[in-house]
Amino acid sequence: MTVITLTTDFGTSSPTASLLSGVIWRMAPDAHIVDLTHDIPPQDILSAQIVLENTTLYFPDGTIHLATVSPVAGEDSCPIAARLGSMFFVGPDNGLITPLLERAEANRWPVEIYHTNRQEYWMQAKASGPTWQIYASIAGHLVGGLPLEETGERINNPLRVSIPAPEMLTNGWRGQVIQIDHFGNLAMNIRQMHLEGMGPIQILVGGQVIESLSRTFGDGQPGDLIAIVDSSNRLSICVVNGSAAERLNAHTGDPVEIRPK
Amino acid sequence: MTVITLTTDFGTSSPTASLLSGVIWRMAPDAHIVDLTHDIPPQDILSAQIVLENTTLYFPDGTIHLATVSPVAGEDSCPIAARLGSMFFVGPDNGLITPLLERAEANRWPVEIYHTNRQEYWMQAKASGPTWQIYASIAGHLVGGLPLEETGERINNPLRVSIPAPEMLTNGWRGQVIQIDHFGNLAMNIRQMHLEGMGPIQILVGGQVIESLSRTFGDGQPGDLIAIVDSSNRLSICVVNGSAAERLNAHTGDPVEIRPK
Amino acid sequence: MTVITLTTDFGTSSPTASLLSGVIWRMAPDAHIVDLTHDIPPQDILSAQIVLENTTLYFPDGTIHLATVSPVAGEDSCPIAARLGSMFFVGPDNGLITPLLERAEANRWPVEIYHTNRQEYWMQAKASGPTWQIYASIAGHLVGGLPLEETGERINNPLRVSIPAPEMLTNGWRGQVIQIDHFGNLAMNIRQMHLEGMGPIQILVGGQVIESLSRTFGDGQPGDLIAIVDSSNRLSICVVNGSAAERLNAHTGDPVEIRPK
Repeated sequence: MTVITLTTDFGTSSPTASLLSGVIWRMAPDAHIVDLTHDIPPQDILSAQIVLENTTLYFPDGTIHLATVSPVAGEDSCPIAARLGSMFFVGPDNGLITPLLERAEANRWPVEIYHTNRQEYWMQAKASGPTWQIYASIAGHLVGGLPLEETGERINNPLRVSIPAPEMLTNGWRGQVIQIDHFGNLAMNIRQMHLEGMGPIQILVGGQVIESLSRTFGDGQPGDLIAIVDSSNRLSICVVNGSAAERLNAHTGDPVEIRPK
Repeated sequence: MTVITLTTDFGTSSPTASLLSGVIWRMAPDAHIVDLTHDIPPQDILSAQIVLENTTLYFPDGTIHLATVSPVAGEDSCPIAARLGSMFFVGPDNGLITPLLERAEANRWPVEIYHTNRQEYWMQAKASGPTWQIYASIAGHLVGGLPLEETGERINNPLRVSIPAPEMLTNGWRGQVIQIDHFGNLAMNIRQMHLEGMGPIQILVGGQVIESLSRTFGDGQPGDLIAIVDSSNRLSICVVNGSAAERLNAHTGDPVEIRPK
Repeated sequence: MTVITLTTDFGTSSPTASLLSGVIWRMAPDAHIVDLTHDIPPQDILSAQIVLENTTLYFPDGTIHLATVSPVAGEDSCPIAARLGSMFFVGPDNGLITPLLERAEANRWPVEIYHTNRQEYWMQAKASGPTWQIYASIAGHLVGGLPLEETGERINNPLRVSIPAPEMLTNGWRGQVIQIDHFGNLAMNIRQMHLEGMGPIQILVGGQVIESLSRTFGDGQPGDLIAIVDSSNRLSICVVNGSAAERLNAHTGDPVEIRPK
């Protein structure tokens, strides 16, 4: 049994997301399939990257992560399939793979990437069908035992789209909100490593000053605006038992500043 | 392993949808179950039909499609089970089956329909339970190997509810919006076949005139209002990288006109 | 194959819910996993209890029900695992288990509850990871054959949080709305048993008087405000083919009164 995860911007009200399962099960009747999310904002590569970065390590070795966001008009991407250490990626060559690839490279895990251009492995229920049919059929073939190197030509230069880096200030960091979750917590592009060696800090966000970093939610009282390092090692701005997004009327891209106290 | 798809108006916030899986797995512990959607608008048979029409061909042979929408008050329907070529349908005899049935008939695929009135195959966790328990237990029994003809009495006159046909004008077609998807694309009851032989056309919709049919999204610029033939061979009105439903403030049933240029 | 159901307040737009599946499949690659709901309002133990109470009986014997709601700040709970008759519960010791436990006790089903404090059975992809990783890994181990009594120390005093009881009046009952479903139906804390022996009743709710109890939706006309006993034996206020929540602008906790006529 192999696990395939799905990450798309197809929406859950639409049945398109479930068609991926249909195509995969044609190829691999035993595959376990789980939706990571189909609620990526349309064409938001960054949000999909963060989902993949935060979740893939929880899955068993050999898991295939199929991810796609709808292409911007006229900019459809090559389909690719990759081995990234003990996991696999199938999706467009549009930068979605970047965080998984960078992690594999940083850990010196084995990396192999292929343009999956051998059309004999493309199951298309309809000839003019959309590209997700290719991803689903390649993922199904991989579960069924097709060697990765059979799917197409090896490439060494996949498109990379990096999560924007924070800016170093004389006295700290300027970053931004890169994701807002279901609870209204704000994830930043500032990570644990940026804070190391700074000593006590204060956080400026949405016109508010947070006077220190909390270790856990339990350090605050309900309603407190706090800053913590979340389970992905990112700085996260939260309201205890509430929504920081609502409190600060926050949006993706909003600035945050970290200063020593 | 057999695949069962689920299409309902139960909503995803409610756990009712997942109870179908519970009942199916009592009968058939190995079944793969996938939600097509549980977000059919309440009692909207037409929307559920379009979901089934657009999706069933992607699934493996032998897939059982369980579909139901909540009955209008006082109008509960007989449960039926049907073979439609290489796929199966289980649900109410309320017209949901019509597009699958018409496709099977058009292709001269084998068709058999039964009122599933043999109550020994109805698993009801609660005696006064709702009708979906019957659909789930029949689907489970079919996966478990129960021959279709054992489920009840064969019928030849299932209720048919057809998607409204477009009206032929002296000079083109008058149709309507029959479904609005997650991206705000408007699907019409006008199909590829209605446009054949018309030559260049213009499309009148929501007070706007679209001066030609595009082949793909890539033919337009972001923000353009375009008309394409979608993967279901339906005329679809779209805004490139946007929502036609918002742009035109469109609703199901809104008229569209096709005229030669 | 064993079935594991999931009930959380993680939201479906967030991928956190799906990580439970990832962790479970590491331990138990054959487990069938189904979402009951991930749309419990944040920290709403009562709503999660009602979901469990209404749904668990539909699942096969041996099903493991994993349920959790995010803890209130500073009030994290011990993880527990329990046998409750033919089903299992895994989650926090915060009262979520109460309705399943009370039902098991009322039916004299076997009950065993353990604090799952043997950390060798806690798979945590990240050392400082959240508590749900523990629930998922314990559930996975149970599917894999770990005896329940191996998970930790037996306890006899799990935290109990009871659904509020209705108040007996001289002449009837005063209850409250305890859940509002997808269709806008209002579930009350008044059950079939409270109405027995009362003869004809009227129901006062949201400034309206409902003059009798209906047996089914079919007893009303579209748009009628009716009261029925739902499939969980609870009094439910509904609008036929409409939303009682909208009609009455109702919220959880709103009062209802039952009086003899």
